[in-house]
Amino acid sequence: MESLLQQSRAMCPFLKRTSPSTLRTLSTATRPSTSSGGGTMSNLQVLARRCPVMSKALAVQSARLANTKRFTSGVAGMDPKYFRPVPTKRGLHSTSGNGADVAPNVYKESQRVDPTFPAAKSRFEAPSATVTGPRPDAPKVAPFDYNAFYNGELEKKHKDKSYRYFNNINRLAKEFPRAHTASQEEKVTVWCSNDYLGMGRNQEVLKSMHRTLDTYGAGAGGTRNISGHNQHAVALEGTLAKLHNKEAALVFSSCFVANDATLATLGSKMPDCVILSDSLNHASMIQGIRHSGAKKMVFKHNDLVDLENKLASLPLHVPKIIAFESVYSMCGSIAPIEKICDLADKYGAITFLDEVHAVGMYGPHGAGVAEHLDYDIYASQDTATPRSTKGTVMDRIDIITGTLGKAYGCVGGYIAGSAAMVDTIRSLAPGFIFTTSLPPATMAGADTAIQYQAEYKRDRVLQQLHTRAVKESLKELDIPVIPNPSHIIPLLVGDAEVAKQASDKLLEEHGIYVQAINYPTVPRGEERLRITPTPGHVKEHRDHLVQALQTVWTDLGIKRASDWKAQGGFVGVGVEGAEAANQPIWEDAQLGLREGESLETAVEREFQDAAAEALLAQATVRMQTAAAEIRPAAAASGIPVGVAA
Amino acid sequence: MESLLQQSRAMCPFLKRTSPSTLRTLSTATRPSTSSGGGTMSNLQVLARRCPVMSKALAVQSARLANTKRFTSGVAGMDPKYFRPVPTKRGLHSTSGNGADVAPNVYKESQRVDPTFPAAKSRFEAPSATVTGPRPDAPKVAPFDYNAFYNGELEKKHKDKSYRYFNNINRLAKEFPRAHTASQEEKVTVWCSNDYLGMGRNQEVLKSMHRTLDTYGAGAGGTRNISGHNQHAVALEGTLAKLHNKEAALVFSSCFVANDATLATLGSKMPDCVILSDSLNHASMIQGIRHSGAKKMVFKHNDLVDLENKLASLPLHVPKIIAFESVYSMCGSIAPIEKICDLADKYGAITFLDEVHAVGMYGPHGAGVAEHLDYDIYASQDTATPRSTKGTVMDRIDIITGTLGKAYGCVGGYIAGSAAMVDTIRSLAPGFIFTTSLPPATMAGADTAIQYQAEYKRDRVLQQLHTRAVKESLKELDIPVIPNPSHIIPLLVGDAEVAKQASDKLLEEHGIYVQAINYPTVPRGEERLRITPTPGHVKEHRDHLVQALQTVWTDLGIKRASDWKAQGGFVGVGVEGAEAANQPIWEDAQLGLREGESLETAVEREFQDAAAEALLAQATVRMQTAAAEIRPAAAASGIPVGVAA
Repeated sequence: MESLLQQSRAMCPFLKRTSPSTLRTLSTATRPSTSSGGGTMSNLQVLARRCPVMSKALAVQSARLANTKRFTSGVAGMDPKYFRPVPTKRGLHSTSGNGADVAPNVYKESQRVDPTFPAAKSRFEAPSATVTGPRPDAPKVAPFDYNAFYNGELEKKHKDKSYRYFNNINRLAKEFPRAHTASQEEKVTVWCSNDYLGMGRNQEVLKSMHRTLDTYGAGAGGTRNISGHNQHAVALEGTLAKLHNKEAALVFSSCFVANDATLATLGSKMPDCVILSDSLNHASMIQGIRHSGAKKMVFKHNDLVDLENKLASLPLHVPKIIAFESVYSMCGSIAPIEKICDLADKYGAITFLDEVHAVGMYGPHGAGVAEHLDYDIYASQDTATPRSTKGTVMDRIDIITGTLGKAYGCVGGYIAGSAAMVDTIRSLAPGFIFTTSLPPATMAGADTAIQYQAEYKRDRVLQQLHTRAVKESLKELDIPVIPNPSHIIPLLVGDAEVAKQASDKLLEEHGIYVQAINYPTVPRGEERLRITPTPGHVKEHRDHLVQALQTVWTDLGIKRASDWKAQGGFVGVGVEGAEAANQPIWEDAQLGLREGESLETAVEREFQDAAAEALLAQATVRMQTAAAEIRPAAAASGIPVGVAA
Repeated sequence: MESLLQQSRAMCPFLKRTSPSTLRTLSTATRPSTSSGGGTMSNLQVLARRCPVMSKALAVQSARLANTKRFTSGVAGMDPKYFRPVPTKRGLHSTSGNGADVAPNVYKESQRVDPTFPAAKSRFEAPSATVTGPRPDAPKVAPFDYNAFYNGELEKKHKDKSYRYFNNINRLAKEFPRAHTASQEEKVTVWCSNDYLGMGRNQEVLKSMHRTLDTYGAGAGGTRNISGHNQHAVALEGTLAKLHNKEAALVFSSCFVANDATLATLGSKMPDCVILSDSLNHASMIQGIRHSGAKKMVFKHNDLVDLENKLASLPLHVPKIIAFESVYSMCGSIAPIEKICDLADKYGAITFLDEVHAVGMYGPHGAGVAEHLDYDIYASQDTATPRSTKGTVMDRIDIITGTLGKAYGCVGGYIAGSAAMVDTIRSLAPGFIFTTSLPPATMAGADTAIQYQAEYKRDRVLQQLHTRAVKESLKELDIPVIPNPSHIIPLLVGDAEVAKQASDKLLEEHGIYVQAINYPTVPRGEERLRITPTPGHVKEHRDHLVQALQTVWTDLGIKRASDWKAQGGFVGVGVEGAEAANQPIWEDAQLGLREGESLETAVEREFQDAAAEALLAQATVRMQTAAAEIRPAAAASGIPVGVAA
């Protein structure tokens, strides 16, 4: 075996640069060897299929094997479980017989993998009558068993505890942050929504949507190129460009699509492009990079030294994209954005910054962390003497991506940057070109939400104060919060089963909804509960949450912060200096905290002010609406299809 | 050169199976050799970068060349235009000097490629001060010029006339099918929307959306796994599964995402999967197949012989997906679905049918063409004696995908099929897992639209009658309609410039909006206008359209049907027997046409009946709403953030 490897290495650049231990890992990674229900092929086999030499060899091998007696004894790249031999009248070899015996057990085990779905039927279970073996003594081969494949994939998810059960949660606009479950009578408090500011129930947003719905209807009716481009898209993209201080912006169905389409397009079109990707990047960026076919270099999370080493290893003239996030949503960490810009300049790279969890939440206008880092300069834009924004962090970022579906409370995603870059993506990205535009009412609602948050910062200030208050209370109770400078409160559990139990207990026994975050969203062993306060989580909610967590932590015997500390600390919990290194990015002065004032007093004061302001704002909106809205009686009388025109 | 190719072939499986002429095409395809502003790399170079041997060789070569004097004279895979030499104090070699001279011209030319965007700034125009050459006489290398790259890509689009200018069209719900342009005063009639049935302005849909917006807010607030799963998703997926007579359904941000995510997931997970793809498939399927990394075999459009040959070339046990559409939207052709199912059964494949342009439009319940093919059986489901649907075409299709954004008037996409298949995609597809759910109001509106169309078929009957009437009128005027059996009216123009001129003239001189469809949406030389009638396009609209087309056809001297016939016919126009082979799939009896009745009489009668029914339906809705809607005064009084809970 070793000598075969030696020989192969002389010929194959892949084998040459891959260590034996990596090869070993790759060859077992996706298929637990003793699993009866799971597994399709190893990662090494996946790679082999992409190699022009091996893919051909594998195809030839599998085609040959398919017509021989050995087809159940393991074909490279194929799991014999999915290929069921058709019994013939002649006696069969034992391997083939084994295959036939094993298969039915597999199906029995995995027949009903999801209790919410009925057992699936399969058109393929009956052997095909049209198949005849090439030689009289060869066993006949049945078609691929698709249903067994599906059930095998699901079985794997069940086995590694990554199978997901969705909670039916209906967030009530008028009782925010409350929701009802599948039953309208059963109410819970939602503590894990990404509608961070409650903009989904904001009166101005809803008014704007109702009005647009009445005037322009439910859907856009086409792609941007064919009848789906309208004043709402123009206005929204203008607002987004202004928000980020960029020349242009472009709206997509979601920020998943925005990230995927933009990275895939740039990475595939720029000659020899290399994409440097933070190790904690979101799935949408990982997918975009993979789809680009560009070379990918993963740098350690927020690690400037590792990033610089990787940048320095590349020729200066080669196009490079540094793809990263401002706020990493599952741990709440924040990237060293300015220093990454410095490295980008030094090594001739462009920066691609995902501000999905930061837009609406940071900065004087809610443009995100990049704006927040030059808080005073951007705040001065609203005054009589605006300061130059040239050279600010946000100005230096080449591509900013964001969402309309979290702090802005609607749905959709976007990119912002130079006019030429945006126009290039607009012109080339299939994920933008060939899809129906967002509905006019969605775009109008999002536009209103952005403008509202650009003018009114109390929501995000209150959100930050509530976050601080919850973190402080949990700290007092020794409940392990993963330290971070953002609005996310990740509670370390460290076990998939226990995290799910904790989530279920909170929901069933305390009426609190916090989803457990398990693998693959976070690494195994780092399972957590992820809590997201909002401006609506007033003192009663917070006290209730903290007490419920205290009970659940005790009931399930979940490790406390001091337990983690005793073990030397883990992912920042119980780690000396981790708290100090993670001071909130919203500073006391920016939050309006007064010297010597207790946090609880400040929260209460801010809440009262916000409530008074909101009442005033709503009264103003009602007056404006009454004055501006001219609704002829005829318009509401319901004219049948086509008659009006 | 020939002997080098001979040698290479002995070693490389790719070169071995690729003909010299194909290699030649690949090596020039994307870069017009004399173009000064365009081009990044040839298709051959794109392929080379994916090869483990060549990609390494290219990287080594480009790294080496970057530090030599030859860097502007053509580096494999890189266009010298994007690499600008930094002048040093020493005299430079002439090649380097040429590079410096050429570059500024390129930038001047392409500086302002899009009149709607201001000229883009570039951080990279100034030479980097940190770069030092390895040897004193080597010229310094500047970073990649990203802006020149963007402008080059845009310049290419301008040159081949595929650059897109979006028309600002605001469809008015209360004046359907009318819209205003950027100016509210300028009204036009929309003749190319995919809101085929006007469901975007349907009163029941809008009521449902308004109600849901008020109760559940603007956005879902999370992914399906984290607080974004709710009763609206459950209800909508239940309705979709029922519509298609399948065990389960799954909703995505769009059908682009549904197709992409489903094909990419199945193709990458099923061992050695082969995807057989119709040559006219939509970009979303093409992208999904490419992203899967699976082997792809393209069969000729609707060609059963070619499909069978390709299926027969594969071993029976290998998993195969036949991916195709029911209605091809740019030509209106309809797939031989039943025969494709026969082939799938024979060769052990599964069928993946995109019904995006057919859902809501065909079948007694609007489930699409697959349902339409067993019209009577599915119509019997509403009677006291429903017939078995087992073995029907829709029953035999494994995966149906559809949209909520066209005939259903909203936005979003879905798949429907076996519970195990749907659960597998739900569990594995990143494009489903890691994205915010559609807003509750969107899902509620779509659910209402589907149920409305399942119960009420007059909209699609009227749409078909209007389509027939327009096609008939155009035929009388010798205007070339590409024959097809569906609701699409493609008019052959055959030239990109002229198609755009015709579209512009219709808009500016006649107040009619029909988008020109050019390359790459259709092949060069097949440019067309694509007209989509709706139930709202009454006689006045149709007469206006036909007259306007007559004028534009004459003004621009566009070829008539008889001209194409004189040339032997083209894409079905002027081809003997093409009309007869493309009888409408909605038969006369299904449309309620009476024997001997003229089409115009039938249209008028059906329209009057529909209008009366719509009035009645609206009155009923208003009564029901008044009775059912209990809105406490307090709910509308505007409670400030958080106070209510």
